[in-house]
Amino acid sequence: MLTLYTATGTCALASHIALEQAGADYQLQRVDFKSTQQQSPDYLKHNPKGRVPALITEHGVLTETPAILLYIAQRFSHANLAPLDDPWALAQVNSFCSYLCSTVHVAHAHLRRGTRWTNDPAAIEALKAYVPQSVGACFELIEKELFKGPWVLGERYSIADPYLFTLANWMEGDGLDPARFPKVTEHRARMAALPAVAKVLAAGG
Amino acid sequence: MLTLYTATGTCALASHIALEQAGADYQLQRVDFKSTQQQSPDYLKHNPKGRVPALITEHGVLTETPAILLYIAQRFSHANLAPLDDPWALAQVNSFCSYLCSTVHVAHAHLRRGTRWTNDPAAIEALKAYVPQSVGACFELIEKELFKGPWVLGERYSIADPYLFTLANWMEGDGLDPARFPKVTEHRARMAALPAVAKVLAAGG
Repeated sequence: MLTLYTATGTCALASHIALEQAGADYQLQRVDFKSTQQQSPDYLKHNPKGRVPALITEHGVLTETPAILLYIAQRFSHANLAPLDDPWALAQVNSFCSYLCSTVHVAHAHLRRGTRWTNDPAAIEALKAYVPQSVGACFELIEKELFKGPWVLGERYSIADPYLFTLANWMEGDGLDPARFPKVTEHRARMAALPAVAKVLAAGG
Repeated sequence: MLTLYTATGTCALASHIALEQAGADYQLQRVDFKSTQQQSPDYLKHNPKGRVPALITEHGVLTETPAILLYIAQRFSHANLAPLDDPWALAQVNSFCSYLCSTVHVAHAHLRRGTRWTNDPAAIEALKAYVPQSVGACFELIEKELFKGPWVLGERYSIADPYLFTLANWMEGDGLDPARFPKVTEHRARMAALPAVAKVLAAGG
């Protein structure tokens, strides 16, 4: 059985949805961010990065959302969560996931995780103030250039979809009006209506 | 023929090395960062993100280093640049590349690209000052936990190797003493000695 270390409100939601959609045999271990359990010696044994998600498998531990999502898609290939038979289509999925990971999530992280990049209290406040602008620019790019519809990469649903859904749920918290991004907002509603997603959200995300 | 948009001193070096090692038929287009050509209307037509690398193929444009590297490995599978036949081993490669992209490169980017996350001049200086600490923590984790040796993932060379090499070359510029990270520094020398890498570096990186 697979075990996913997760916490509500984090990007681990994307991996949780993918496991559910894959029909995987999995269990959750919730990490308590309020007590910074992700930095506890016990958790650091699983994931020395001190973050979620971490997927425990019979081979060992896997971290980083894009890698976990593609691994789930490959391991449960019958679920058709990625175009595994088409390197170019798969590359577009990977490119989108990489952009979410390295640019969109990073811009968002400057709201509450500024201490990753500075220990200056005034700078941390300055980083917070800029989040609507930096995250807003990311969603502008997604809305105008990257998103194909009805799913992220067009007609074919993929692991890019739960990942976009996860980060798009943070928009309001990042000070953005979803009405600025109608395609992304429609996609968010389309995702929330999927039975697997509804089940995961009802279980606490 | 493939075309790689690149610029000296950027992470596009990893894709350049992979193309060379794959024996690909490719050409380079150099983007002049000094004149911010990456933000010019002509370049933004290729890549609306205004960054390098961008790989132009007969199917369209591909961006994001982890996606480009895996695409090269799949397209030129005879070059054995990734464990394509082993989903778990491939997941470890993808996890490492994702960490480089979303954490190591991002920490480094706070040295000269602070305007991505703030427009406050004092905050930009504070971000610069913290780079040795944040990038140093990344290379500590790689040195102690992630790097297996002699290559990143152990005995088998992969696309994770040119990617680590590329970012490890920035250490001194980030204010770090390579002697703190002997495994990463040995790997850097091992990479530089490969004929394909030497050829790419001699051509300007």
